[in-house]
Amino acid sequence: MAVQSVEVDASTTNPLPVDLGPATALSCRECGERFELGPIFACSSCFGPLEVAYDLPLGDADALRKQIEAGPDNIWRYAPLLPVPADVASKPSLNPGFTKLVKADNLARELGVTGGLYVKDDSGNPTHSFKDRVVAIAVEAARAFGFTTLSCSSTGNLAGAVGAAAARAGFRSCVFIPHDLEQGKVVMASVYGGDLVGIEGNYDDVNRFCSELIGDPLGEGWGFVNVNLRPYYGEGSKTLAYEICEQLGWEIPDQLVIPIASGSQLTKIDKGLKELIALGLVEDKPYKIFGAQAEGCSPVSAAFKAGHDVVRPQKPNTIAKSLAIGNPADGPYVLDIARRTGGAVEDVNDEQVVESIKLLAETEGIFAETAGGVTVGVTKKLIEAGLLDPSLTTVVLNTGDGLKTLEAVAPTTGQSAVIRPNLDSFREAGLA
Amino acid sequence: MAVQSVEVDASTTNPLPVDLGPATALSCRECGERFELGPIFACSSCFGPLEVAYDLPLGDADALRKQIEAGPDNIWRYAPLLPVPADVASKPSLNPGFTKLVKADNLARELGVTGGLYVKDDSGNPTHSFKDRVVAIAVEAARAFGFTTLSCSSTGNLAGAVGAAAARAGFRSCVFIPHDLEQGKVVMASVYGGDLVGIEGNYDDVNRFCSELIGDPLGEGWGFVNVNLRPYYGEGSKTLAYEICEQLGWEIPDQLVIPIASGSQLTKIDKGLKELIALGLVEDKPYKIFGAQAEGCSPVSAAFKAGHDVVRPQKPNTIAKSLAIGNPADGPYVLDIARRTGGAVEDVNDEQVVESIKLLAETEGIFAETAGGVTVGVTKKLIEAGLLDPSLTTVVLNTGDGLKTLEAVAPTTGQSAVIRPNLDSFREAGLA
Repeated sequence: MAVQSVEVDASTTNPLPVDLGPATALSCRECGERFELGPIFACSSCFGPLEVAYDLPLGDADALRKQIEAGPDNIWRYAPLLPVPADVASKPSLNPGFTKLVKADNLARELGVTGGLYVKDDSGNPTHSFKDRVVAIAVEAARAFGFTTLSCSSTGNLAGAVGAAAARAGFRSCVFIPHDLEQGKVVMASVYGGDLVGIEGNYDDVNRFCSELIGDPLGEGWGFVNVNLRPYYGEGSKTLAYEICEQLGWEIPDQLVIPIASGSQLTKIDKGLKELIALGLVEDKPYKIFGAQAEGCSPVSAAFKAGHDVVRPQKPNTIAKSLAIGNPADGPYVLDIARRTGGAVEDVNDEQVVESIKLLAETEGIFAETAGGVTVGVTKKLIEAGLLDPSLTTVVLNTGDGLKTLEAVAPTTGQSAVIRPNLDSFREAGLA
Repeated sequence: MAVQSVEVDASTTNPLPVDLGPATALSCRECGERFELGPIFACSSCFGPLEVAYDLPLGDADALRKQIEAGPDNIWRYAPLLPVPADVASKPSLNPGFTKLVKADNLARELGVTGGLYVKDDSGNPTHSFKDRVVAIAVEAARAFGFTTLSCSSTGNLAGAVGAAAARAGFRSCVFIPHDLEQGKVVMASVYGGDLVGIEGNYDDVNRFCSELIGDPLGEGWGFVNVNLRPYYGEGSKTLAYEICEQLGWEIPDQLVIPIASGSQLTKIDKGLKELIALGLVEDKPYKIFGAQAEGCSPVSAAFKAGHDVVRPQKPNTIAKSLAIGNPADGPYVLDIARRTGGAVEDVNDEQVVESIKLLAETEGIFAETAGGVTVGVTKKLIEAGLLDPSLTTVVLNTGDGLKTLEAVAPTTGQSAVIRPNLDSFREAGLA
């Protein structure tokens, strides 16, 4: 795969000025080398991942807080902290974000949490997962770089998010999936009218194909949200940190429980919290970040428990398919954050995932996808192990919607009884 | 079925003072007789339907507008105009509402609308349909009347909304459905932990059974949201009118296109608009209300076209199952409103419903349930017929989520191509 990169001084490759607001450059997370803003994702010196560097509006925190609070009820209220132009809110977008932070008192009683338990419920996004956040940012980068086609490799959720965002924003979309996905995911991903291409192979094959396509003339003008636009895309997860703190009255919670797929979301939430502190929008205080995995795909949890700095890849086998990345790119960074903040990484088995989906539904009326079952289940396990302090404020993420993973709970839900349409039959059922 | 009713002066049946905020009584829509607030739904004199009467905060419109704007981002910002106690926002609820009003410029171009086209997208509610609004109000009535079990008859969507709301609000739930619903709907309705009872029979049988249960000691303490709590429940739809006007900068749109099932939603939106005018929150101006049905269940549309005042029942046969009420209770009121405001009632066939779901998805990235296909399709048809003026501001309702009616679009969506994981194979597919 050809790694494309441009050094800051080489201004020839991108003749148009790129306006991505406070974003000033891309910077290598490993060696720190800086590159001009562009559709690149790996350092040309050390092959490390690139992330967005900013010129953040340090200074008058009160004025910034007021500006944010007066902004729209979506992620664009945080435009001054994101790689997007200042007028982003006026462009066609699905406008995700500002989802509910639900005070989960019923669940807190079940888990014995006394310090305040909250569920950040991202099933309220336009296509019902947190992916709408990251895709919305990638769309703005795609606009800035002059791309006309939006693309991605996906196992389903991201495909729908990209298809929907592209339709609204006026891009063509062409999305790649393993050819044998469940029909429901295929329907949702294709209803937005873009091209949906099935690849004969597994998700790794799809990924490899996309990397090939980026280096080929066939892929010219294509923005792959999770490949050549990945540095921008990832920044969308920072908005989860911003919203949680603003919704808590501009306070950082003591503890956060975050699902781990690639690990990107967890690292960006940590980045977002640090930015809020640096900007003076919240008071500096310690916080603990906990990572949550499914036992059937728990490379980061395994490394955490073994005290390793590196993550040994696993072959995923879990119902939590949206978290089933066996070789998570940001695994080492996650380990570092969990250890530095005094958190932990834990996993639960599929049975516990299902139990936890039902526990959240039965206590708070929130029907989470399997990833939400993972975070709730891990929260319970961490409390029982004494690793998560129930007397402290805790925020648990639900990143998706149970309607998309019905098959996970189908075997253990259903009708309590089937009766004839009369009172005697109902009486016999013993449910009155 | 026993009709329970209590006259205003007979204060013995309900010894506890009922605090439902500005709601003062129930009033018969046919003969005007008034009854004390209670779990009743039909007039004891003429058997007409009861609706909530209010003591609305007439007077300082600016102060009321400010109070609303400072309220929570959900339907409780309108608490002064709803049958709920003033402290409703502090009670456990799914807190539905304040969903997006999407400026649909792409769809407007497709339909030739130049006066501003908006989609009120209620798929953003907690269980992804407008039912969360009506159920949330019914829950407050159930609290006020001391009920401990929440119930309803349902073909799926309402069952989920009641199950979720009951779980969060601390009620037991026991919901009745036809026993042979699709598995997906059964899973969603049962995941919240309440009882879900399948009835051997069709939806009419389920309804009849619920009416029997209300009159029996077995049903004591049970609030049926769409039967004995129906007058309160229905008021939830007023919030759609409030939100649309507030989101348009406190202006009434010129034209609204609303789906018709029982017809209740349409009549309550009209009621809400009239209240906003009476309160001085919006300027008084003419507006036209259009009703939308599926051809396979179009009793109101048929009556409108034939110039009738009454609605002849039909046997439903359409993919728009959430609208498939063959004998709509509020049909005559809908006819009256459409004629009085200069609107119309129209219907589209199932093929047009599917085309319209896809048109909305492809232009705005909104994946609507079949009812949304009905309103978009009817809008197109009304413009072509010269009945809806494309130069005026128009709001089209999408009341639910495409994820719940995947089967409607499944036959005509899918993968554009299936390829081997290499560039040659992609090139041959002709999609680059």
